[in-house]
This record gives sequence, C-alpha cells and structure tokens, in this order.
Amino acid sequence: MGITVVGSVAFDTIETPAGKRERCLGGAATHFSLAASYFTEVSVIAVVGEDFGPAEEAVFRKRNIDLRGLEHAAGKSFFWAGSYMDNLNEAKTRQTDLNVFASFEPKIPEAYANTTHLFLANIDPVLQRRVREAMPQAKLVAGDTMNYWINDHRAALLETIKGLDVLVINDAETKTIAGNSNLVQAAQTVLSLGPKSLIVKHGEYGATAFFSERSFGGDRIIMHPFRAPAMPLAEVVDPTGAGDSFAGGFFGYVASQPELNPQVFRKAMFYGSVMGSFCVERFGTERNASLTREEIDARFEVFKDLTHL
Amino acid sequence: MGITVVGSVAFDTIETPAGKRERCLGGAATHFSLAASYFTEVSVIAVVGEDFGPAEEAVFRKRNIDLRGLEHAAGKSFFWAGSYMDNLNEAKTRQTDLNVFASFEPKIPEAYANTTHLFLANIDPVLQRRVREAMPQAKLVAGDTMNYWINDHRAALLETIKGLDVLVINDAETKTIAGNSNLVQAAQTVLSLGPKSLIVKHGEYGATAFFSERSFGGDRIIMHPFRAPAMPLAEVVDPTGAGDSFAGGFFGYVASQPELNPQVFRKAMFYGSVMGSFCVERFGTERNASLTREEIDARFEVFKDLTHL
Repeated sequence: MGITVVGSVAFDTIETPAGKRERCLGGAATHFSLAASYFTEVSVIAVVGEDFGPAEEAVFRKRNIDLRGLEHAAGKSFFWAGSYMDNLNEAKTRQTDLNVFASFEPKIPEAYANTTHLFLANIDPVLQRRVREAMPQAKLVAGDTMNYWINDHRAALLETIKGLDVLVINDAETKTIAGNSNLVQAAQTVLSLGPKSLIVKHGEYGATAFFSERSFGGDRIIMHPFRAPAMPLAEVVDPTGAGDSFAGGFFGYVASQPELNPQVFRKAMFYGSVMGSFCVERFGTERNASLTREEIDARFEVFKDLTHL
Repeated sequence: MGITVVGSVAFDTIETPAGKRERCLGGAATHFSLAASYFTEVSVIAVVGEDFGPAEEAVFRKRNIDLRGLEHAAGKSFFWAGSYMDNLNEAKTRQTDLNVFASFEPKIPEAYANTTHLFLANIDPVLQRRVREAMPQAKLVAGDTMNYWINDHRAALLETIKGLDVLVINDAETKTIAGNSNLVQAAQTVLSLGPKSLIVKHGEYGATAFFSERSFGGDRIIMHPFRAPAMPLAEVVDPTGAGDSFAGGFFGYVASQPELNPQVFRKAMFYGSVMGSFCVERFGTERNASLTREEIDARFEVFKDLTHL
C-alpha cells in the first residue's frame, strides 16, 4: 500500500517579490511527499547531511511520512538558491550544491517492499531506473525529470521514461524531449517513447494529460486528453515546489483509489492542481505541511466551480 | 434582436509554418461576425475599398450577415501583413496600411436600430464610444482593444471600457492596462475601471472570466471566475482571427439566449473557445466561413470532455 518516493530532500534559499527565506526545507521528494500525505501513506528514499535536524524531521513526522529510507550522511544536505524576482513563472538558479547528493546511492528498506505506487522525482535517470528495478512489486510508476537530464543524459532518460505509467513534466521539457514546438505533436512523440500517459504542467494555466493507446488496469479504455486548471491567485508568495506538490496531490489521490481509470485520473489531476495552488501561497513547505483534508476538499470544489458548466 | 459589430474588414497577407496566403479576407469584424453568425443574426458596420468585391461579399452573404452598414469608399481596404514563422502564439506585423480605414466614420443604418447586442471590435476607442452612444437601445455591449490604444490613447480607452458589459482582451493587454504583472490583481484593477466582466484570453491555454460585483440582468448574482480551455491542437495552420472568433462565438451564443446569467456566460465561453479552435485550423476565414452548427456542437462536447470530471 501507499507511495514510495525517491528524490531530493534539501535546503532552499528563495527570493521572491514577497520576501526572502534562508535555508528553508525543500527538495522535490519533500514537496511531493507532503502533498501526497493527505491522501495515502508515503515513504521517502533520499539522503540528507548533518544539517538536517529534528526541526526538519518533525515536518515529515507530523504528516506520518515514513523516513526509514532517509539516509543520514556525513556532510551537508543538497542546497539550492533561486530567485523569482524577474519572473514568478521561472526560477533563476543562483546556486546549486549537490553536497551529500553527489554520491547518493538509493537504499530501499525492506519495510518498503509492499509499496504499490512508486514516484521517481527529478534525479539522475540512472538512479530512477535502479529504484524502479529494485521495486518490481510497484504496480504504478510515475516520474518527473528536468532539462539537464533531457539534454545531457538523454539515453539514460529515455530508458527510464519508457517504462513509466505517468510522466509528469512541463511544457518546455515536453518540447525539448520531442524536439517539437507544437505541444500536441510533442506530447504524441513523448508517448511514442513508451510512457502510458503524459501530464504536461503549464504553470499558472494548469496541466494537460495525454494518453497512449495502452490502457491502465485491465480493460482497454480510450482516454481523451484532459485539462485541469490552475487556480487564479491574487498572490503567489513562492512558486518553489508547486510542480512537485502537483505530482504529490495527483499520485497521492491515485494511490488512494482501488484502480486507475479515467475518472480517477481526472480527479487526481484536480487534486494535483489543488495542492500546487496551496503550495505557492506561502514560502517553502509552510502551507502544505499544515493543511487539513477539509481545506483540500473545499478547494477541490472551487476548482470544479472554476471549470464546470 | 441580434448583434451589431463595428470593426475592421480587411485583407491579410499571412505567413505561417504551414504556408503563405496573399490578401485573404480578414479583419476583426469579419472573423467576429462569421463566428457569431452560427448563433444569431449579425450586422456589420465597417468600411472597405474598391478592392472588396463580389467574392469577399459572398463570404458574408453565405452566412446571412447584414452588410447594409458596410460602407464602400474610394481607395483600398485596410491591409495587414504578418508572420508567425518565429512564434505561432504571436504575430510579427510586417505591414499595416489603414487605407480607407484612416478616415472611417461609422454610419449606423436605421435598419440596425433594433440591435440588442453590440460588439465593439478593436478600433479607435473614440469611434467605439461614438457607436455605443448612437445605439442606446443595445442592452449588452462587449468590446476588444489592443496595446496601441492602451498605451497611446489611454484616456479615450478608459472612457470606452467604463461602460462595457464584457471586455474581451488578452493577458498582456490586461496587465498593461493595470500596470500589474499578476493576472488576478490586474483583472481586479481592470474591473475597478468599470466593465462588469472581463474575459482574459490566454491563447493556447484558453480564457478566464472575472466578474465585478455588479450583476447582469435583474438579480444580483455573485459570479466566480471561470476558465474555459482551448483545444489541444496537433496543427495550428493560422492563428489570425482566433481571438475575434472567440469573441464571436462567445457573444453570438450570449445574444441567442433570453438573458445573460452565469450558466449562459460559461457556455458562451466554451462556444468562444470552440470557434477559436476551428478558426486556426485553416488560413483566414476558410474554416469558420463553412461550418455547420452540428460540427460546432460536436466540438462543444469535446470541450466538455476535455474539462469535466
């Protein structure tokens, strides 16, 4: 039962028009697991350094996230510094220190062996594939990536995405993988590389899902493209982690359901958008670390109202 | 009954990755009226030159569009040349010849006196307001504009949009009017300038409607923001006129209904997106000049499937 996520747990220094935060808890696996924790059990595989202490651990513990796969290594945790001063839709990276992540070798606790859903957050596609192969019992596997792997580690990346049930990336990444500037054509090309479905995240404009002809679950079901909105927000405090929170809400809801059918996929995308919309309302993990399921479901209804005739 | 539209009827030379067309029929009033003609009676107020002949007139006649307000003047029609070779989402203007439009003085035929719905397509806001004042019987008035008027004729533009029921513009125009790069804040500022509602067109990502607290029709109804998708299209042949076709589908449907309430507004936005999606499938007016209501309603269902849980 539940999701295992492999990815980064990090410290972020973030500057946005709303202010600045030094070394707040961040990382793709962090944002993903917090968002998913409102829907299902979540277990983390990652590595942190000696700077990761009780305060950071408490954020995960409060959400009952399993940290038995969180390795503590000598040295410092992954660190990222970025600014959104010029453009809230795109971070300008000021600094990236891999630190303990540079030599990360994912180790999977035996306790994770009953995981049914696996999320491969944005890390080296070689490691993503190694984790996937070490968890053959996972019946649904989703993953993310970024332009660095697409451009400089293409062969390894294609090998990883080939086996995915759901690939969750953004417009630019989709177009870069395909070498095509038309989103629909690019999506078709990406699907021809193997993933059963592709969710393209459009930032403030929501996300669109595309499906290959291979079905989920038992029966062969033709699934049409589906578009989930983003929430029109009067204030975006910090966009960091919005995409990972989308993935967490999406996959968390999927994992909470007995099967992945078109109706579940659609609702899951709405929950993804909901978690992304909460994430950006505060810095770092502040908002998604302390929500209630009632707040989440109330916003789900707002998303329905925003899109349904 | 029906809509009167004032705006440009023009010839366009268009270059896109799909090919090139010389001097095809175009102009905001043309694209608007063709799209609206599938829903209601449409009457045009515009001016053309001696190059506007029976072939062009036949496009309107075939859709039963009333051309009694189309003035024929000595000289050439408005001409625009643009290219989408670099970016399908934004035209690069190569040439604009106002020609007979430079001295356009809208004249309103008596036969148009029973018009209930008035659309002020993108022209000089002074002319837009003059037409509006000459048609006081119009119970709903919508309009468009562009950055040129926003930047260089701001006072006249603000005077015109103050009285609109629906302002239909794009993201960049909304942000420019408000001087604010956050879309929701910008929309709130634009609404504070007087229009009852604002539809912001996002191109390939659809459109979002925002509402002021003033209601449509009799009862005071709180209307929440609403987002209509665009169609994910594998081939965009020519984006020219997509925004005007959106406005035509939107306002055409509105005019076909006994009142403008939230349900009608939402369905109208879907019909707007439908007409925009057809428009870009061929060059110029080719697609929207020869549709059937059955094709339109079939695509409306596709849009529902694309967005509804």
